[in-house]
Amino acid sequence: MPEETTDELMHATYRALCKHGYASLTMRDIADESSKCKATLHYHFDGKRDLLVSFLEFLNERFTRKIAAIDADDPTTRLFALLDVACPDDEADDSDMFQTAMLELTAQAPYETGYRDRLREFETYLTGEFESVLRTGIDAGVFDDGVDPERTAEFLLTTINGTQTRRAAVGHDAAEMRQMIYDYVETTVVSDESPRRTEVHAE
Amino acid sequence: MPEETTDELMHATYRALCKHGYASLTMRDIADESSKCKATLHYHFDGKRDLLVSFLEFLNERFTRKIAAIDADDPTTRLFALLDVACPDDEADDSDMFQTAMLELTAQAPYETGYRDRLREFETYLTGEFESVLRTGIDAGVFDDGVDPERTAEFLLTTINGTQTRRAAVGHDAAEMRQMIYDYVETTVVSDESPRRTEVHAE
Repeated sequence: MPEETTDELMHATYRALCKHGYASLTMRDIADESSKCKATLHYHFDGKRDLLVSFLEFLNERFTRKIAAIDADDPTTRLFALLDVACPDDEADDSDMFQTAMLELTAQAPYETGYRDRLREFETYLTGEFESVLRTGIDAGVFDDGVDPERTAEFLLTTINGTQTRRAAVGHDAAEMRQMIYDYVETTVVSDESPRRTEVHAE
Repeated sequence: MPEETTDELMHATYRALCKHGYASLTMRDIADESSKCKATLHYHFDGKRDLLVSFLEFLNERFTRKIAAIDADDPTTRLFALLDVACPDDEADDSDMFQTAMLELTAQAPYETGYRDRLREFETYLTGEFESVLRTGIDAGVFDDGVDPERTAEFLLTTINGTQTRRAAVGHDAAEMRQMIYDYVETTVVSDESPRRTEVHAE
């Protein structure tokens, strides 16, 4: 399949999920959001689940590109930039519906190996990025040397997962929860001696 | 409906969720786990969703009783006991399947007001308990007085939600994540001067 077709179908899938949620989503709904017909979708994908596995790959790739685009040398700025990308404070109209659809899809991961593997890839990638910036910051003396990079990276991922679940399920304020993750990082990760601390705090 | 009937049906619902998960669960599956017939269930409940709203109420009540049974005066012991109840490290065979079913149910909360209201009640109750023990500990001088009880309670709830989501969706180790929540509490909440700190750490 040509790259622009894949790209078009993935954007169509995003719009269809925003409109219909996960459970009731059909191949027709996705086709309706694209210039392709339902038969073309069935030619390229074995069904809705197969298409959604490709959609998760598409989201992982897009996420990786956003991380790669972060232009920050110093560890504190880079750590907060990672948090911004991983825990976006998105005010787009369709965003709540999309978060709801993603929670439904996540809840199907125990039954769908394809979903679970893609979600695990995402988690492994993101914890790796957190770990790496934490090690760099500790070595540079701007992060507290009592911080365990591996455990802290896992803890950050857990708090991000919790933020997404509570936002979608009970409508808890995402911006407020993100601020608490920032506070946690400032209190327990960023060294008291770091010159960046006050700067970041003031942003 | 007599209390023992309700109780029997709620335990039957628990077993049926452990066996069948949420999506494919039927009123017949629940009846099969009880001494009642399907018609009796339909007489008392409008359907699966109505029955599951009662099941969430049953879980909330059971949780409230467990919290009420905590016999600990000092704030540090009480805070860790609350975490034990809220984030159980359950090794029961059916437990993974139940967590999966609960994540599916949670993912339906945006569509089901009855689910959402019960989940919110649970969150409000639990954050209230966390807030209360945090205030008591700060007043008693055993918790750091820089701790914001309201925000810390919300942060703990977010980490507990994240633990449950990651456990069910990608099979991440719950005991490891719970230990990270303990570490967070010991590092940021329990005051360095508290005599309980070493004691709890050694447990």
